[in-house]
This record gives sequence, C-alpha cells and structure tokens, in this order.
Amino acid sequence: MGTDAAPLPEVDGAIQAARNRLAEVLLVGPEDILEQELARRGAARLPIEIVHASETVTMEDAAAKAFRRKRDSSMRVALRLVHAGQADGMVSAGNTGAVMAAAKITLGALEGVDRPALAAVFPTSKGKAAVLLDVGANVDCKPHHLEQFAIMGEVYYRVIFGVERPRVGLLSIGSEDHKGNELTRESFLQLKGLPLRFVGNVEGRDLYNGRVEVIVCDGFIGNVALKISEGLIEAVAALLKESLSSTLSSKVGAVLSRNAFRHFKKRVDYAEYGGAPLLGVRGVCLIAHGSSNANAIKNAIRVAAEFAERGVNGKIERELAHTVATRNY
Amino acid sequence: MGTDAAPLPEVDGAIQAARNRLAEVLLVGPEDILEQELARRGAARLPIEIVHASETVTMEDAAAKAFRRKRDSSMRVALRLVHAGQADGMVSAGNTGAVMAAAKITLGALEGVDRPALAAVFPTSKGKAAVLLDVGANVDCKPHHLEQFAIMGEVYYRVIFGVERPRVGLLSIGSEDHKGNELTRESFLQLKGLPLRFVGNVEGRDLYNGRVEVIVCDGFIGNVALKISEGLIEAVAALLKESLSSTLSSKVGAVLSRNAFRHFKKRVDYAEYGGAPLLGVRGVCLIAHGSSNANAIKNAIRVAAEFAERGVNGKIERELAHTVATRNY
Repeated sequence: MGTDAAPLPEVDGAIQAARNRLAEVLLVGPEDILEQELARRGAARLPIEIVHASETVTMEDAAAKAFRRKRDSSMRVALRLVHAGQADGMVSAGNTGAVMAAAKITLGALEGVDRPALAAVFPTSKGKAAVLLDVGANVDCKPHHLEQFAIMGEVYYRVIFGVERPRVGLLSIGSEDHKGNELTRESFLQLKGLPLRFVGNVEGRDLYNGRVEVIVCDGFIGNVALKISEGLIEAVAALLKESLSSTLSSKVGAVLSRNAFRHFKKRVDYAEYGGAPLLGVRGVCLIAHGSSNANAIKNAIRVAAEFAERGVNGKIERELAHTVATRNY
Repeated sequence: MGTDAAPLPEVDGAIQAARNRLAEVLLVGPEDILEQELARRGAARLPIEIVHASETVTMEDAAAKAFRRKRDSSMRVALRLVHAGQADGMVSAGNTGAVMAAAKITLGALEGVDRPALAAVFPTSKGKAAVLLDVGANVDCKPHHLEQFAIMGEVYYRVIFGVERPRVGLLSIGSEDHKGNELTRESFLQLKGLPLRFVGNVEGRDLYNGRVEVIVCDGFIGNVALKISEGLIEAVAALLKESLSSTLSSKVGAVLSRNAFRHFKKRVDYAEYGGAPLLGVRGVCLIAHGSSNANAIKNAIRVAAEFAERGVNGKIERELAHTVATRNY
C-alpha cells in the first residue's frame, strides 16, 4: 500500500512478477480491495496470495509512531511474514523512514552489523549501475560503520549485478588519499585494509561517471547527495520542458525528438533497478520510490527474489566475520 | 592566467568589462603575451592596464606548494595588488584550492571571521539565483562557523542581488527542526537566534527549486554537493546527446529544438553569475570556473566591482559585530 497510486502499481507489478515467474507473491493490504483489483485483471489463477492488513502507513506518519500505533499496517504485516519465514523478502514503496525503522525493529540486524544501511542504486553515464550507501540517514557515522557499509555494498553489487570485483570508493572532496574530513581520513585507512577492490577517495562527480561501482559515505552525506540529484533532475526537466515549448519550431522539434527522450528516459530510469535494498537486516527488504510504477515494483520483486535465492545476507555475515577474524590475528 | 584556455577568455572578458565601463581592469600575467593579445583586438585605448607576472599556477600544483614556490604567479601578484589597495578586487579562474589558500594568507580574514567560505552561486528552476556555502572545503565545521557562513551569505545575497530579506536555510536531511546530525542540530539553534530570515532546515532538493536564497552547510557537504551537481549535469548532457543523435528523426528534432536548448542553456548558465565569491577575506576575491568563457569573466569582473563598491565586507563585519554584541548582553 506504499506507492503514491497504491494499490494499482503494486497489484500490476505483482501480476507482472507472477506472470514472468520471478516469484510467488504475497500481496499485503486490505483484502477486499486487493481481491477486487486482482479479479478485475483476470489474475485469479496466478501464484498471488492476498494477506490481509487493515492499516496503512502514510507519508505524514512519523516513523516511530507509525510503528507503535499501526500494528496492522501493510508494512508491518509484510515484515512479520519475513520474520516468520513465511516470506523470503518484502518490497515496500511506502514511507522510507517508517519502513527502515520497522524493518530494523522487526527483523533485527545481521551478525556483525552495527547499523543497517540503505543503498541507492542508480544508472551512470557508462550504462552501468552504481550503488551509494548509506542514504538512509545513519548520521554521525564512525569509521567502522563505513567499513561495514563497504563490505555490505560490495557483496550486494557482486551478487546482484554479477560483477566479480566491483570497485569500492570512499566519497570525499578530492581523490588524493589525504583529502577529506576526520571521518573519511580515518575510514580511508580502514577501507584500505579490507580484502576488496578499494580505489580510494572518489568525488561527487564520480557518482555518475561509472568510475566506481560502490560508493561509501556517512548517511547524512548520502541522503543529501540523493536528494540533490533528485532535485536537480526535476529542475532540469522543468526548465527543459519550458524552453522546448516556448517556440513553434522547438515544439515541432520536441515532437521529433520524442523518441530520443524516451530512449534517454529509459536509460536513466531508476525503475529498472527496482528499489533500494536495506542492507544488514536479518531478512530481505527492498524499498521502492513512492512514485514507482508497475515496472519498478516488478523489478523490486525480482531483485528481492535474487537477494534471497543468492544468499546475499549469508555472504555478508561471512565477509564481516572474516574481516574481524583477520583483524584479530 | 587561470582558465583552461588562458589568457583568451581573460583578455576578452577584460575587454568586454572595460567597454561596458564595468571597471578599470588590471590584467595580470606575462606582459608580452597580454600586450600582443590586446593589440590584436584593437583594445589599446581601453582602460586596461597590464601588470606583469612571470609564473602561472596550474591545476597540477598543490595549493600550499604553489603559494610558497611561485611567488610571482599571476594569482599572487593579483592578490598583492588587492592587499596593497592598488586593486579593489581580483578575479581568478585558476586552481580553486590554490586561489583560496593564497587569498587567505595574503589578505587575511575580516574581523570576526574564523574561516572564510567559498559561496557557489547557481540558478534555480524559479529563474532566481541561490547561494550555497561553504563549498570550499572547510571540513569539520563547528556551529559558530555555520553561523558566520549564514551571516556572510545573507549579506552577499542581499547586496549583490538586491533582495531585502533573503531566506536562509540550513542544509539537512529533513525539513523538521530535529532532523539532521550533531552539527546541524546544534547549528539550527544558533541560526534561529540570528537577526535574519532563517527558514530552518532545507533538503538537498531545495537547492534548485528556489525555496530559499542562501543555503548553509559544512564545507565537506557543500563541496560534495557542488561536484555531484556538476557530475550529474555532465552525465545527463552526455546521455541526452547520445539519445538525440541515435535516430534520424531525432536528428531533425535536435536541429529544430536547438533554439530551445540555447534558451535552456542560457537560463542555467553559471556564466551569468560570473564566479564564486570567497567571503570573509579582507578584500574582494571572485573565483571563476576553469572552463569560464569571456562572458563569465566579464560577469565576474562586474560582480567583483559591485562587491567592492557596495561595501559587502564592511557590512559583513558590522553584522558579525552586532551578532556578538547582542549575544553578550
């Protein structure tokens, strides 16, 4: 019940996922509405099961209050299914803060993880995906948090995108080793000691140029980075639209370049990546954008299934244990 | 001698500024080259004076080393002219770190300023400018630094853009008062007590939507924010160009929408704002982008002249003194 147009994108996304045999879907929300929508789409015979939840968390709900007061919200019911082993993972396009808080409390953290981290997945100019974490507001991080983020992000990228040795960078203000603030300078030394392909400091411009696959930062920076990007894209789109419709010839031009824009949009469409994984919780939790369409939901379901099947969490725990073990001896 | 195509944008920008009587220009650099370029453009009778400097700081020079070793670099000679009162301000499109370091050492800080701050000026979707500071790598700031940034940014915006009560926001990860990290939560309380129009926390998306005129942040965040924006614009432009040239009809479309893109480009062109002021030094120092064209240099000269004429620095010192005085009683 999380998207802005809920439950339509969820229902359509679930149907697409079921039709493509990506997963068996448990659709969590008000039984009557969901039954009606499924029936209307002739989806009764697909492997989709409805699990009733009577409440919905909205964007206006504060995360902690939503958790305490709405015990029968679709997000809490879904998380309980994961916790009980009745679901292999959950996808929500709801209030990000509320999903994160509920997931951390309901599922708990993996062995060796101090702070679960939200990882944003986005396209670069090279056509590959990059992962930035934490974007989930883990503020005032310590170096060992960033170290855990690096390990979790690297395992995630490796397993989900099938890249054997993804490059890991530390977000800073210059590529030289000594550039940065207290946190990044200390973290740099720790990341250098990890058994992964650490390429050192990267700059803001490296988020989108494909120079690196996994970028690690404090959750304050990550959250600001994500929202600046969203805001800038919105501003550019608005200004471009205005400019394009301001003259007749450019109106004609706009029609002719429509295919190009569609092509462009598809290439930068976050929907292809489905959602942001909450890494480090004991279970699988994908958080999709509130504006997600059915395609984004379908892809989030696909990624959640891959996350579970390929054992991302087990690999994360083993990597973390290995890191601690190597450090102690 | 700072732009990527130096000294041509500098010479042409100086000529445009002199022709438009924006300022009398001292052009600092290798005398022979500058004389030749001025003569070639028939600019001998304009109020442009050449001041010889035999060295040039490059992008490869480390800031501190450049300062110590290249005593006769164009940026140091220009700064000495400001310090000696022979120039009212300086404009450089050179190595930002080197200009900042040299300016802080040569000019010193204004009364009441602990850390001079670099302010990025950029367009928003509302067609107005916004100012973000610090983007100049003042890392690990304390709340009183952010307080000084707020006062300096507000005075600058008020005086240069003629807005009586510009809105000032604190860059954080949510608009609610309590959202943020240790630094922003403490800074919030201090900014609230200032005699300016503080609108509270703003988010990354508010940089470009015109909701606020002055945005204050730690120099690590600001630098990351600026570079992410540059990187994203580059990536979007590259992808858009590729998509536009991928089909014949969109090639035609691209030609027809060329005017629209020009219009768009002009609206988002940082060159209109000329450069980033280094606020809090005892003098006027505008740092322009290395890719600046003549128009950007001309506008930077215009802003530097306005900065000096309208007494921005005196106003900053008075505001800071007033703040301290009000706080003590």
